[in-house]
Amino acid sequence: MTETMDKFWSDGIAGIRPYVPGEQPAVAGLVKLNTNENPYPPSPAALEAIRNASNEDLRLYPDPDSTRLREAFGRVHGIPRDRVFAGNSSDEVLAHAFLGLLKHEGRPVLFPDVTYSFYPVYCRLYGIAFEAVPLDDRFGVRVQDYARPNGGIVLPNPNAPTGRALARADIRKLLDANPESVVLVDEAYVDFGAESAIPLVAEHPNLLVTQTLSKSRSLAGLRVGFAVGQPQLLQALERVKGSFNSYPLDRLAQAGAAAALQDGAHFEHTRAQVIATREWLAGELARLGFDVVPSHANFLFAGHPSRAGAELLGQLRERRILVRHFPGPRTDRFLRITIGTREQCEQLVAALAGILTTC
Amino acid sequence: MTETMDKFWSDGIAGIRPYVPGEQPAVAGLVKLNTNENPYPPSPAALEAIRNASNEDLRLYPDPDSTRLREAFGRVHGIPRDRVFAGNSSDEVLAHAFLGLLKHEGRPVLFPDVTYSFYPVYCRLYGIAFEAVPLDDRFGVRVQDYARPNGGIVLPNPNAPTGRALARADIRKLLDANPESVVLVDEAYVDFGAESAIPLVAEHPNLLVTQTLSKSRSLAGLRVGFAVGQPQLLQALERVKGSFNSYPLDRLAQAGAAAALQDGAHFEHTRAQVIATREWLAGELARLGFDVVPSHANFLFAGHPSRAGAELLGQLRERRILVRHFPGPRTDRFLRITIGTREQCEQLVAALAGILTTC
Repeated sequence: MTETMDKFWSDGIAGIRPYVPGEQPAVAGLVKLNTNENPYPPSPAALEAIRNASNEDLRLYPDPDSTRLREAFGRVHGIPRDRVFAGNSSDEVLAHAFLGLLKHEGRPVLFPDVTYSFYPVYCRLYGIAFEAVPLDDRFGVRVQDYARPNGGIVLPNPNAPTGRALARADIRKLLDANPESVVLVDEAYVDFGAESAIPLVAEHPNLLVTQTLSKSRSLAGLRVGFAVGQPQLLQALERVKGSFNSYPLDRLAQAGAAAALQDGAHFEHTRAQVIATREWLAGELARLGFDVVPSHANFLFAGHPSRAGAELLGQLRERRILVRHFPGPRTDRFLRITIGTREQCEQLVAALAGILTTC
Repeated sequence: MTETMDKFWSDGIAGIRPYVPGEQPAVAGLVKLNTNENPYPPSPAALEAIRNASNEDLRLYPDPDSTRLREAFGRVHGIPRDRVFAGNSSDEVLAHAFLGLLKHEGRPVLFPDVTYSFYPVYCRLYGIAFEAVPLDDRFGVRVQDYARPNGGIVLPNPNAPTGRALARADIRKLLDANPESVVLVDEAYVDFGAESAIPLVAEHPNLLVTQTLSKSRSLAGLRVGFAVGQPQLLQALERVKGSFNSYPLDRLAQAGAAAALQDGAHFEHTRAQVIATREWLAGELARLGFDVVPSHANFLFAGHPSRAGAELLGQLRERRILVRHFPGPRTDRFLRITIGTREQCEQLVAALAGILTTC
């Protein structure tokens, strides 16, 4: 980048640091356990709905309000559609929430020191002050640590990349202790065994919950996310959305996502398989000497006492298995391993066993 | 909105004013000439590509860089993919451009006083100063009026809602006169008869051109837009995108859009029909006494000397025909009429003839 080109960039753009997503390899045949995708296909009903929506009506704009989709999400959770906001992935919904709800002069947003690395990225993009609150030694959230002045609290539940979950009662404590600021609970992974905070929305005007279809509905390729909150809170998101892109969800995504949400049987069946495989893999990793953090997500965070995370990642990559590693003082030792099929996880265990017997 | 709820909103959010899109009616059977959709269906090849992409790979994230799609767009315009940026509609691409390229302390962005009403919305969302530069009496852009200090210039070509086009030579004059700031040419409607500025990108590091598949490719329902510029300029957009949503385009949109771009025959055929109908309708409206602004877009901007725009809009609505009206001192008299099929435009002419014979 030459200085002569930089002159065209907006003030501050040179200082932002984009999120780095996990690798999406162009080559086939890899065991891909690096981006928390679901190993099972989406609901056949969703695929069928998309094929049916691929018709000449694509010449028309989609419903800007994703009305039917929000109704479908609301039915799953027993809430009316006016408590549901929909966007082009939960990343977009989170971005709108940071800009619309979490920017308060002189009051930093709080989130854990080990968490989804997109949160500080949003803050830098929008000029929002933030403070990272250290997790305890086992990567647990201590809700009492958030009892300090803030412009909002962001907690993923379960947390990423650790997989650790908070009980709903702890979320309630946070809400009660922070009546003047928004508590955003990012539930990207909640369907794999954690308790959703959605039932708390009715009593808590300061609660925003986000979810996604990327993980538990096997639709990472469709880009659909949601926020749940009281209508007055969602209005801030609507204002940002309406000042950014009036039609965030295309016709195909709206149709496919609504059909996926209606297929409860497929959802229950596939998530049960993921959970069962996770429990099996956690046991196998422990048997190999790994320190495995208890997970309620579709991934495990595990470190080996005698091998660095980056080293293991490279050795797995040589064996055509992709996992993820997050550099940093507290995470350096660990790998984040997405739960694949049982067969894929068996391949991983065999590969790790081979790696660990060599020096 | 009660004050007790407002406290959760970010600083400044109460002051933004979202864009108001044209009505997307839930009832069928209306003649919908209000949101500049194409009356002809998308390429059958695009619909087929979407159906083929509705498969179990939807469980995987899409290509975050939309590589094949950017290549397909590049082939249409004879440019390499590293000069192409893709986003979830040109509205999203424009939003990223405003935030990434047009925010410079003390230097306002310039755009016409009558133009796409989303531009001031982006400015308010991101805290960007702007000045509206008056068009001439016939809604023409005088490029010399932009020769003043600025943090960027935004011009739609053809302009909306007027339909008036600038020659490429005028764009070149603007670029040469503003070597220190970005000139953004929004070509949402360019395929209906204006000259694209894309051939100027090679020589002008300060030129950004945006396009969309919503209009000339009949894919408003798919939400795909592009920016073209030199790589150093696009890096600012990439930085914003990577700090907002790493995967803006779902797998279906990437597949369908690439196929649509490859179907040159369908594109040429349908846009020729739209242009022919526009010329016919312009003549008919003039015959009815309308002042019709010369258009190079898929809409006409026309006002009647003895009837207010809002009044005509209401009377057309009673006859189940939707058009659009933009309140404001310079636009109040006019209707913006999307070019439909010849049959739809004949219905419009008949309805207007009937309305104008009553008092």
